[in-house]
Amino acid sequence: MTLTARQQESAFQALDGFAIEVPSWGFANTGTRFGKFIQASAATTTPEKIADAGQVHRVTGCCPSVAVHVLWDYPNGIADVDSLNAYAKTQGVAIGAINPNVFQDQCYKNGSLGNPDAEVRRTALSHILDCVEIQKKSGSRDLSLWFADGTSYPGTGSVRARKKWFEEGLQMVHSQLTGNMRMLVEYKPFEPAFYATDIADWGMSYVLSKKSGPRAKVLVDTGHHYQGQNVEQIVAWLLSEDMLGGFHFNDRRYADDDLTLGCIDPYAVFRIFHEICLFEWEQGKKADIAYMVDQSHNLKNKVEEMIQTACTAQEMYLKATLVDREKLVSEQMKGNLIDSEECLREAFFTDVRPLLREWRKSKGLAEEPLAAHRESGYNEKAEAERAERNRGAVASYA
Amino acid sequence: MTLTARQQESAFQALDGFAIEVPSWGFANTGTRFGKFIQASAATTTPEKIADAGQVHRVTGCCPSVAVHVLWDYPNGIADVDSLNAYAKTQGVAIGAINPNVFQDQCYKNGSLGNPDAEVRRTALSHILDCVEIQKKSGSRDLSLWFADGTSYPGTGSVRARKKWFEEGLQMVHSQLTGNMRMLVEYKPFEPAFYATDIADWGMSYVLSKKSGPRAKVLVDTGHHYQGQNVEQIVAWLLSEDMLGGFHFNDRRYADDDLTLGCIDPYAVFRIFHEICLFEWEQGKKADIAYMVDQSHNLKNKVEEMIQTACTAQEMYLKATLVDREKLVSEQMKGNLIDSEECLREAFFTDVRPLLREWRKSKGLAEEPLAAHRESGYNEKAEAERAERNRGAVASYA
Amino acid sequence: MTLTARQQESAFQALDGFAIEVPSWGFANTGTRFGKFIQASAATTTPEKIADAGQVHRVTGCCPSVAVHVLWDYPNGIADVDSLNAYAKTQGVAIGAINPNVFQDQCYKNGSLGNPDAEVRRTALSHILDCVEIQKKSGSRDLSLWFADGTSYPGTGSVRARKKWFEEGLQMVHSQLTGNMRMLVEYKPFEPAFYATDIADWGMSYVLSKKSGPRAKVLVDTGHHYQGQNVEQIVAWLLSEDMLGGFHFNDRRYADDDLTLGCIDPYAVFRIFHEICLFEWEQGKKADIAYMVDQSHNLKNKVEEMIQTACTAQEMYLKATLVDREKLVSEQMKGNLIDSEECLREAFFTDVRPLLREWRKSKGLAEEPLAAHRESGYNEKAEAERAERNRGAVASYA
Amino acid sequence: MTLTARQQESAFQALDGFAIEVPSWGFANTGTRFGKFIQASAATTTPEKIADAGQVHRVTGCCPSVAVHVLWDYPNGIADVDSLNAYAKTQGVAIGAINPNVFQDQCYKNGSLGNPDAEVRRTALSHILDCVEIQKKSGSRDLSLWFADGTSYPGTGSVRARKKWFEEGLQMVHSQLTGNMRMLVEYKPFEPAFYATDIADWGMSYVLSKKSGPRAKVLVDTGHHYQGQNVEQIVAWLLSEDMLGGFHFNDRRYADDDLTLGCIDPYAVFRIFHEICLFEWEQGKKADIAYMVDQSHNLKNKVEEMIQTACTAQEMYLKATLVDREKLVSEQMKGNLIDSEECLREAFFTDVRPLLREWRKSKGLAEEPLAAHRESGYNEKAEAERAERNRGAVASYA
Repeated sequence: MTLTARQQESAFQALDGFAIEVPSWGFANTGTRFGKFIQASAATTTPEKIADAGQVHRVTGCCPSVAVHVLWDYPNGIADVDSLNAYAKTQGVAIGAINPNVFQDQCYKNGSLGNPDAEVRRTALSHILDCVEIQKKSGSRDLSLWFADGTSYPGTGSVRARKKWFEEGLQMVHSQLTGNMRMLVEYKPFEPAFYATDIADWGMSYVLSKKSGPRAKVLVDTGHHYQGQNVEQIVAWLLSEDMLGGFHFNDRRYADDDLTLGCIDPYAVFRIFHEICLFEWEQGKKADIAYMVDQSHNLKNKVEEMIQTACTAQEMYLKATLVDREKLVSEQMKGNLIDSEECLREAFFTDVRPLLREWRKSKGLAEEPLAAHRESGYNEKAEAERAERNRGAVASYA
Repeated sequence: MTLTARQQESAFQALDGFAIEVPSWGFANTGTRFGKFIQASAATTTPEKIADAGQVHRVTGCCPSVAVHVLWDYPNGIADVDSLNAYAKTQGVAIGAINPNVFQDQCYKNGSLGNPDAEVRRTALSHILDCVEIQKKSGSRDLSLWFADGTSYPGTGSVRARKKWFEEGLQMVHSQLTGNMRMLVEYKPFEPAFYATDIADWGMSYVLSKKSGPRAKVLVDTGHHYQGQNVEQIVAWLLSEDMLGGFHFNDRRYADDDLTLGCIDPYAVFRIFHEICLFEWEQGKKADIAYMVDQSHNLKNKVEEMIQTACTAQEMYLKATLVDREKLVSEQMKGNLIDSEECLREAFFTDVRPLLREWRKSKGLAEEPLAAHRESGYNEKAEAERAERNRGAVASYA
Repeated sequence: MTLTARQQESAFQALDGFAIEVPSWGFANTGTRFGKFIQASAATTTPEKIADAGQVHRVTGCCPSVAVHVLWDYPNGIADVDSLNAYAKTQGVAIGAINPNVFQDQCYKNGSLGNPDAEVRRTALSHILDCVEIQKKSGSRDLSLWFADGTSYPGTGSVRARKKWFEEGLQMVHSQLTGNMRMLVEYKPFEPAFYATDIADWGMSYVLSKKSGPRAKVLVDTGHHYQGQNVEQIVAWLLSEDMLGGFHFNDRRYADDDLTLGCIDPYAVFRIFHEICLFEWEQGKKADIAYMVDQSHNLKNKVEEMIQTACTAQEMYLKATLVDREKLVSEQMKGNLIDSEECLREAFFTDVRPLLREWRKSKGLAEEPLAAHRESGYNEKAEAERAERNRGAVASYA
Repeated sequence: MTLTARQQESAFQALDGFAIEVPSWGFANTGTRFGKFIQASAATTTPEKIADAGQVHRVTGCCPSVAVHVLWDYPNGIADVDSLNAYAKTQGVAIGAINPNVFQDQCYKNGSLGNPDAEVRRTALSHILDCVEIQKKSGSRDLSLWFADGTSYPGTGSVRARKKWFEEGLQMVHSQLTGNMRMLVEYKPFEPAFYATDIADWGMSYVLSKKSGPRAKVLVDTGHHYQGQNVEQIVAWLLSEDMLGGFHFNDRRYADDDLTLGCIDPYAVFRIFHEICLFEWEQGKKADIAYMVDQSHNLKNKVEEMIQTACTAQEMYLKATLVDREKLVSEQMKGNLIDSEECLREAFFTDVRPLLREWRKSKGLAEEPLAAHRESGYNEKAEAERAERNRGAVASYA
């Protein structure tokens, strides 16, 4: 596929319009239940996380915002909003989605909004409403809601009662949203609940969002699906229902592995972007979707893995923009299976990296973001500053 | 668990109210794509299938109706309705759910209601509307809709266009229903479509049913789920949304294996019934659910496997009625995990077979349905009559 | 199924011969990567863990030994052996399998025996050889080897080189075993490695064990399998190859959920025991198998969950002993599918709890171990003594 | 990645040495248990299948042999060998692997070599030994053994007895092999057996092959794995054990979907080839592996899908040859995760299609095999000749 000047221009426009948000918690030390492998350069404070996000944006040019986690990033709650916003600005990024945390405190052992104890439900709701205030003050559009709620043994919770408590809680949250604010409701089949997770699949997110109100949309975490489940089909359904709010991007092989986007199955990532590009092409306008990363950088250097992720997202997105959609739809309508399929393969197997390098040059960015980062000395500096604080931070399994 | 007289009475009432429908196609020779193993006593005509269903009901007392498959059981369409109803009556059973077939004809290669070719969509719709007429004339309450539609390779179909065609087709079907008629929309993750099945999960059935109208409900085939997916949770959600229409019962280990109900995981069957019993207990009335069997009796003797299935369904249902629900709910509310879980285990591990034998005696049935069937000489007679017709019926893979 | 005096006697003999080992780490606070929910009565020291194990044995009569974890239970290494053995004796239990830990230290980030760095491989081997010394001194028969080794991203490790390093390391370990000592090699498909785990399935354990020597056997953790994989078939294969060393029992629904044995699928547990009983019946002697529990008691009270587990194991084992094996084999040989299957179902659906209560009475045990434990005041005492130490022990995700 | 002249030469050499065998049954009408969609141009006789294979080789240049299925392709057994060999020669191809069929006949309902009935085991063995004679006379190197054997319900077969019968049967087969002949033992987790398949995973194939003798090797069908299972890791293990005999290539999403190679996850195909290339590079010689296709072309035009498959195989293989293995191994040894991973990604994302077109030109082949085939008029001719015979060939489910 040799691109015409017009195609290249259109590709550049696509890249100009493509941004992906990074999570503050992606720069801190994380691990599995068996322990954490500590990185000396990992961020230990919120400013450090923001600085790392700034570095990622500096070299990629496509990560202008940072999702934040209220429990960890706003120790003083709403009082921290202005200073954090200001600091982010100095790092060249903006504060993005606001993530409440209603899974870590001891009171949440049997759930948060789905807890049988009304007192705990109130505690959880109160924390989320505080987050809405932070969201308002911060000027963040999206409240990103993930619930660890569920039960791990048959019989230990009432499925329908918990569903009702979620309906009530989410409606309360929705009632506090104003302006262009949205709430995104994430689903996940299991972990940490191992028998029945209260919001286990897109259908449950959909039903709860619909009951909450028009500002509630479904959040698709690409790693939160059953083996074999077709994520791009779910994406297309949600688009057709105007219920797709955004993504938490990562890759997986077995469970919610939280690996680097596209490291296991890049063609699947391409197909998700293709469904979005096809929708936008048919509608003649951009879909209103928050693209966010949510990964656990347990082993790779955190900033490097985020750069790798951002570049992969750009590559897969760019490939998706190259699909000959006119031909595709025509072949689909004629039932020409091989010809329609080849429209996707033709685009996917095109090497878009030269094009991306051109775009980067046109933006004054380095052609190879990872190399540029490594040459910048950023990591060495971070290591020097943070190593001491990262020592001894280990948690063991038992 | 020793039952009081009152508990026994209540158990007998539960059994009196429990019926499960058998499918006509469960008595014919079926197989896998690799071939069919032919049984000499398998039904070769619709009257033979009805007669087999009659035999199952005769010995179990809990299978009073037969689901029919229009393509196979009504060769003359609506003209066959009266005679089939009359024949069923002579066999002691009634005609149950009406099942259209829009997957077998060559025109359905790329789908039925989801086919890109409008002509094929019309053909499929027309067949389904014929089935609605049969349903009306037959006095059948439920139209049972399973669609094989989908695509097997990425890019070969438009997810959203196919969804829209389904919305249109199902709304047309719904518009023809009258009286107490319902349409049940089944979902299935894969097979025969291997990339994206048009109605792949309960969420898709739910959305399409909601758009069709109030007579459309979701049909749960227990074998149509992803590995690990929690079926009883879906059942509870559908109950809470008044969207559970009925079941196609069978068991599975890997894919849609269509094995004997409960042969792989009986505790899971029990938990499904428990969610229903709990709902009915809380609501103070019976849920409106069609219990139907849908299995492929490829290896076991067909009538025997159906008897085994009916008995298993009764046992698991009876166990579910024994759960101490008052205690269960109380322990759940207090967050007592082990105590609430043990309410389920206590009931499941109770041996209900003596109770079932008592109930059968009280109904004038044999205590052991399978033994009674074997002693009846039914199979030998069927074999003598049908063996010739069953010869040479084999289909090979390639 | 009414048991004759002879059957009851034989059942009692079976129970007399059935013991299951509990893990010391099952009494400490554990959690998921998202955090731990702290129990005030959880064990905080090795003596407390041993005391808890003693309590479990006191009320169940079937848990006479405790598996230990060298890193956590022998802070002074081999110097702790005598005192621990002595303490265990005071609690009425013995020290069982020795578990090295080569996954938690920072040096194991890229593996232990499979690490590309020879220095790390040596460190890991050295730790395991220390464990062998402890095993010898302790008089423990089994060294229980689980390796977290593997890679999480394609290309990041050499599959064959790592296999070779494992062969070398395990042969070294084997060469140090004497007397009746054995080494059990565990497999696990994923977690914490998410792309390729070095010992991922029974085939890999088998190959490595065979290469190590005759004292190396495969350890089957019931939760370490792919969705749908048939564990009892693997058990039967290993028995036929004389390569089954033992079990880590637990239950699962999705991944390595480490739930209470039998809480999700009790029929599967029964079938595992059935394969063993069938083998022993055919061989005319007991199989040499270590039955051990390995669960994460994150939510339920730890001692209570262990008692629940031990009772479930006894129940499922007892059901398995009731299978009419003579009839089973005869029906299998004749190809009578339903009749052979019903041999299993007949035994599984028999309520063995009355029989178990009889056996307990005959041993001077309380009929209901869980109730007896609750009435004993043990938990209240543990809580009073340990609550302070359990405070503030929380680890957060990021 | 711009290739140097030397790299291009080395790539051409790699392509010269890469051949993939097509199956005769891939040109006949196949389907699912729900029915077959008939193609007018599908092969209806063995000569037609061979002719189709010839056409695939004519346009791709990389499919010089055809695997045959004895039951279907040798109606007169060994008497057909000479004429079939001669006919294949006229079509520019050779007869490849010999595939017995011991699953289709009615006697195999409860198994073939694993059947409890010794008479059936003898029948199966006899058929396989006939195939060995055909193999000898035909000059075919490989006997390709797939067994549908297994049980579909717990308790209905003896796992260990069936294993023993397989050991005996396979040893008999092995004893008849001479010269360079091999037997390849395929595994498959399920379908058509739904509870326990007798040869369910690579470990079982490995154990049985080892017991059979040195000419027995494992056959890896890429579609025959559990969800999430790492196929390339199994490939690497088998290579290191000198036990990899060959492949049946296809792609899957859910079960044994038998889709076009690489249509669902092309990166996984690339990684399989990479493990082989890496092994060969380290060993300094070609691995002795039979590359074969085994797909069900139910919906796409059969010859076209085979061409698509062959081209995909070439592309993925060529990408694998481009991996900078020296750098890869060096980065792996240093534990540089991102750098080693990028060696794979760099190669995979290189567009090798221009290189392939160059190679084709250098061989006098058309640059675009699929287009060349379409322009050849082959399909129209086949349709004209075969349409009549393909009519009415439909099999229904029940």
